[in-house]
Amino acid sequence: MVTLRRPLMLICLAGTEQVDQTLFLIMFKPLKRVVVTGDTHGNEMSGVYLAKHWLKNPSELQRETFSATPFLGNPRATEKIVRYVDQDLNRSFKTEILTSSSEGDELYEIKRAKEINQLYGPKGSTQTYDFMIDMHNTTSNMGACLIVDSTENHLIMHMANYVQKNYTLAKTPIYLYKLGDEESYAIDSICKYGLALEVGPQPQGVVRADALKHMRGLVNSVLDFIDLFNKGTAFPAFEIEAYKLLAREDYPRSSDGEIMAIIHPHLQDKDFDPLNPGDPMFQTLDGKDIIYEGDTPVYPTFINEGAYYEKKIAFAKMEKLTFSIPAIQAQTE
Amino acid sequence: MVTLRRPLMLICLAGTEQVDQTLFLIMFKPLKRVVVTGDTHGNEMSGVYLAKHWLKNPSELQRETFSATPFLGNPRATEKIVRYVDQDLNRSFKTEILTSSSEGDELYEIKRAKEINQLYGPKGSTQTYDFMIDMHNTTSNMGACLIVDSTENHLIMHMANYVQKNYTLAKTPIYLYKLGDEESYAIDSICKYGLALEVGPQPQGVVRADALKHMRGLVNSVLDFIDLFNKGTAFPAFEIEAYKLLAREDYPRSSDGEIMAIIHPHLQDKDFDPLNPGDPMFQTLDGKDIIYEGDTPVYPTFINEGAYYEKKIAFAKMEKLTFSIPAIQAQTE
Repeated sequence: MVTLRRPLMLICLAGTEQVDQTLFLIMFKPLKRVVVTGDTHGNEMSGVYLAKHWLKNPSELQRETFSATPFLGNPRATEKIVRYVDQDLNRSFKTEILTSSSEGDELYEIKRAKEINQLYGPKGSTQTYDFMIDMHNTTSNMGACLIVDSTENHLIMHMANYVQKNYTLAKTPIYLYKLGDEESYAIDSICKYGLALEVGPQPQGVVRADALKHMRGLVNSVLDFIDLFNKGTAFPAFEIEAYKLLAREDYPRSSDGEIMAIIHPHLQDKDFDPLNPGDPMFQTLDGKDIIYEGDTPVYPTFINEGAYYEKKIAFAKMEKLTFSIPAIQAQTE
Repeated sequence: MVTLRRPLMLICLAGTEQVDQTLFLIMFKPLKRVVVTGDTHGNEMSGVYLAKHWLKNPSELQRETFSATPFLGNPRATEKIVRYVDQDLNRSFKTEILTSSSEGDELYEIKRAKEINQLYGPKGSTQTYDFMIDMHNTTSNMGACLIVDSTENHLIMHMANYVQKNYTLAKTPIYLYKLGDEESYAIDSICKYGLALEVGPQPQGVVRADALKHMRGLVNSVLDFIDLFNKGTAFPAFEIEAYKLLAREDYPRSSDGEIMAIIHPHLQDKDFDPLNPGDPMFQTLDGKDIIYEGDTPVYPTFINEGAYYEKKIAFAKMEKLTFSIPAIQAQTE
């Protein structure tokens, strides 16, 4: 299934003994069949409002070389203003679920995942859509974050680089979410390529004009990139900083499973800032600080994300790395 | 029922033709039976975490003249991290509901309202508890707001005045919620006196250390006031500014009921600031501004409160007024 996420062709611009990524030009097919979804989580309202708006007024999603198609991923959750009805839709796109017998279909999101997979996939097939933008919000102070599976996805890394240079009204860090070799469970994994946008802070069930503006700016920037790419623009090699998921940290809990300490005020809203050994992470309700005892700095993200209490995640620990990305171009002939 | 909210005695300190409130000393009975609830809405987490903490460690709620009792108003909503299970608990305390036949008891919150009324009421009876603090959070930027039914509740206005002077780490505006002569539907209306605390901004389902600190500071300040009051301290007359509810404003909607415009970025987070004629209130997704066309300034509050989308409230319009509050003292003999 993962083969479709591989480039079309590698062209080595100069022969060397040592592999130097800057010497490669990687060719990809143009991205013509593009979809945008806004309510994979039904209470993340910037995407919900934009998708609903674009369903009525799709002109903003048109470019010279393609038109993106908006759709509602989880209309039932949107109606109830909840993240999901039966289970997290954005954890429902593993092949095992998508190809399971219909016994699990009493769960709304499994039924819906299969429907979406038929509409814009099927995942791993030749007829799957080229690209999906998946719009999310977080209660964390993540700015206008670009969520990519891994830097080996060179096309999407170029897209992220383009957005960082062209959408400058908010910080636009890159979050590399893949831990190890696990298959992606996210909605955009059914298309050849995907990008999730994560804008925060915004409370669940609330639409804020500032968050919506950033989400809109990101989507427009992504569409601009695709248009340039489709027209044959060559994008040169570059180096880029990104944050890679190391591990997830739970809240301190008592023996009965109750949360015993909350995010420390010094950590709250500090997404992507370094957490150094000795820095406070949590504060008990008795006022005691719980410090970070690791050996090296980490970069916390999704700090105090509302939906992650049930997932037992207080924040994600990231490392900050620099990556070399080779040049790319669309094979337009 | 409302008689219990009347003072015990009025003492006119000097005879005059014109009634001058500053000449009165109003006597009240001490407040000895005091309760604190934290999850009237199960996803407003500062109160939830504090109430759970105090149930295990109640010493913080002790004073020389009394000990406040913490309780969980809506444990089932807390468990699910939702505002309510079947209907809003804080709209379930009208006498008509509390004295209804048990037919409505399939609704969890009606059953729970009746239970709470038996524990700390019954509403309007002689055995009802003296005072209830009800802890709330909002997604709006309301600071550490004190919600009082009306300024005629002189004892609670003195309490609010004391909190404003002694808890200075956040703005502590007074919100007068009663519109006309309607009977109160709120949980604290079952006790002789009540005060709701509304701390924001905090997303639903999230506990932030800053919001929790303010909530804790408010509760401690209220308990300090009650202790001084119970000891016989005389509180002199004063003038005070407060915000009184005028009306509630809905979002602009299309003919099918869908929200067509969101809170304008110039209004977002401006709770208790004046909204002047000609100021923008909403912004459509096409980028058009919708302005406030009233004749006089109003003071919006609960701007973009997440739980009020379903209630069709974009914000509450308030007027800012100054009130004269007469002196009070507890009748300790």
